[in-house]
Amino acid sequence: MHILVIGAAGMVGRKFVERLATDGRLGAKPIARMTLHDVVAPAAPAGAPFAVETVASDFSLPGEAEKLVAGRPDLIVHLAAIVSGEAEADFDKGYRINLDGTRHLFDAIRRIGDGYRPRVIFTSSIAVFGAPFHDAIDDEFFLTPLTSYGTQKAIGELLLADYTRRGFFDGIGIRLPTICVRPGKPNKAASGFFSGIIREPLAGQEAVLPVPDTVRHWHASPRAAVGFLLHAATMDTAAIGPRRNLTMPGVSVTVAEQIEALRKVAGDKVVALIRREPDPVIAGMVAGWPRNFDPQRALALGFKADDSFEAIIRAHIEDELGGRIPA
Amino acid sequence: MHILVIGAAGMVGRKFVERLATDGRLGAKPIARMTLHDVVAPAAPAGAPFAVETVASDFSLPGEAEKLVAGRPDLIVHLAAIVSGEAEADFDKGYRINLDGTRHLFDAIRRIGDGYRPRVIFTSSIAVFGAPFHDAIDDEFFLTPLTSYGTQKAIGELLLADYTRRGFFDGIGIRLPTICVRPGKPNKAASGFFSGIIREPLAGQEAVLPVPDTVRHWHASPRAAVGFLLHAATMDTAAIGPRRNLTMPGVSVTVAEQIEALRKVAGDKVVALIRREPDPVIAGMVAGWPRNFDPQRALALGFKADDSFEAIIRAHIEDELGGRIPA
Repeated sequence: MHILVIGAAGMVGRKFVERLATDGRLGAKPIARMTLHDVVAPAAPAGAPFAVETVASDFSLPGEAEKLVAGRPDLIVHLAAIVSGEAEADFDKGYRINLDGTRHLFDAIRRIGDGYRPRVIFTSSIAVFGAPFHDAIDDEFFLTPLTSYGTQKAIGELLLADYTRRGFFDGIGIRLPTICVRPGKPNKAASGFFSGIIREPLAGQEAVLPVPDTVRHWHASPRAAVGFLLHAATMDTAAIGPRRNLTMPGVSVTVAEQIEALRKVAGDKVVALIRREPDPVIAGMVAGWPRNFDPQRALALGFKADDSFEAIIRAHIEDELGGRIPA
Repeated sequence: MHILVIGAAGMVGRKFVERLATDGRLGAKPIARMTLHDVVAPAAPAGAPFAVETVASDFSLPGEAEKLVAGRPDLIVHLAAIVSGEAEADFDKGYRINLDGTRHLFDAIRRIGDGYRPRVIFTSSIAVFGAPFHDAIDDEFFLTPLTSYGTQKAIGELLLADYTRRGFFDGIGIRLPTICVRPGKPNKAASGFFSGIIREPLAGQEAVLPVPDTVRHWHASPRAAVGFLLHAATMDTAAIGPRRNLTMPGVSVTVAEQIEALRKVAGDKVVALIRREPDPVIAGMVAGWPRNFDPQRALALGFKADDSFEAIIRAHIEDELGGRIPA
């Protein structure tokens, strides 16, 4: 089969592609070819047992999405997005990439026609929800984005469902939890501390915690995110019905519970590297974010969360630190 | 003040404009000027005590929305839409008018900038909801459109909320119930019988009822719809908060209750003009439509439904039949 990944240079995209390169197959089907796309050329995975083509372009520009789908990939994984902060700072750019880009892609698939009907996975976000909401948001709660990014993701979900209903493709939208522990350098994202307070201490470095211990949030490991994509790519979509967008399962923990899990895995000395430095601006933003979900539909359809926050930390140590905590 | 009505040639648009022409003012403010737009030139209301300009154009084409808002209207009422059946039959046209047209309009307002921030009323629809749903859909139920029209309206709602949040205009979206009794000739809409079984018998003509008496639906008179628009145009929008789209209140009745109301108002002879002719296709479509709502937010914000289905029939007789049932 032929797989197209749009946004393949991002963290989740890279891990998904590496996993496929290791497996050589998707479910029971051997992979013959992958096309990896991003605004900068993605790296081809080392040692992939199939042909890999890398493409760098702005897929929101006229004609670019058509080129990407012209080879009729069997599976299209759409991970590309202008992230929350940038979509808020640059209104036009956010709408151009996140709304127009997504719609151009969907239309390019539709225009091929001729019986072409690929599986399309759209990665949405819990940013489609904005406060106030219930303590555990259920699968029928309405979309109340409080950012342009969340608005654009919610619109992508609606388009995905309608284009699927019309038979243009076989779409599934998955709302990812906050990915934790995100590997790599600290970034400026307001949510960055959720990963930072685990990642930096495990690397022997100090991390700043800007919010109270009582803050609760919704997490999934990069490994779980790859699992969501693999399941979305291979599952029987007939079971989903017309409501094609699903909140992925996650682990809901408070910051205090994150810290206690870290203590259990890595000890007091590592935990002591977390420095509390309250930041009212970040605390204010985080107060409007979802804390917990009741994702019964995704669970019933076979999507699997991490077992616990401790398991999330252990997955990080295995996947990013070679299984060892640096002394 | 200057009012722009887009979609002014439609039934609700005409009644709204006629009401403003009679009043000469909107709330406390005298109307200086109205611009009436539609794809065909709308009729100017007779005897309006203000200047009326009529414009015919396709507002989804580049530059057209800019022309409409260049005069900086204080209030913009956006009623234009490709209706459900046509948006389903002509995919490109539905998206071009209902999504692109709406977005072009919103962007044209945004691009004026310079402190311009008009009140914008967007008429949405209960078609943003699709089965299965609760018996009475509450204000937090998620949007589950099962038509391209409903999808386009849901996207318009999301854009309205985001553009309002960003301060580009002061938007309010109102989800209209099915308008009943719709005046004029019978049309091909699958929902047409809800009006037809009242309108035709009152005019001494036979009407066909294609669904069982037990079918329940959500209704508002044209008079109530005009009331919603007037309230949305004059209310204090600060009370709404960031969730700018509201399900309007209506009257939930079964077809049997519609018929008994007609009997009470007009007698057995009129009711005898309703002929039952089951149509499984129409019955199947109607089975997926909302039956009842619990529109607490709109009620708390001062929107008023008709008192009863009997009141809806009496409003039709007063407004369309000169207060008399033809013998």
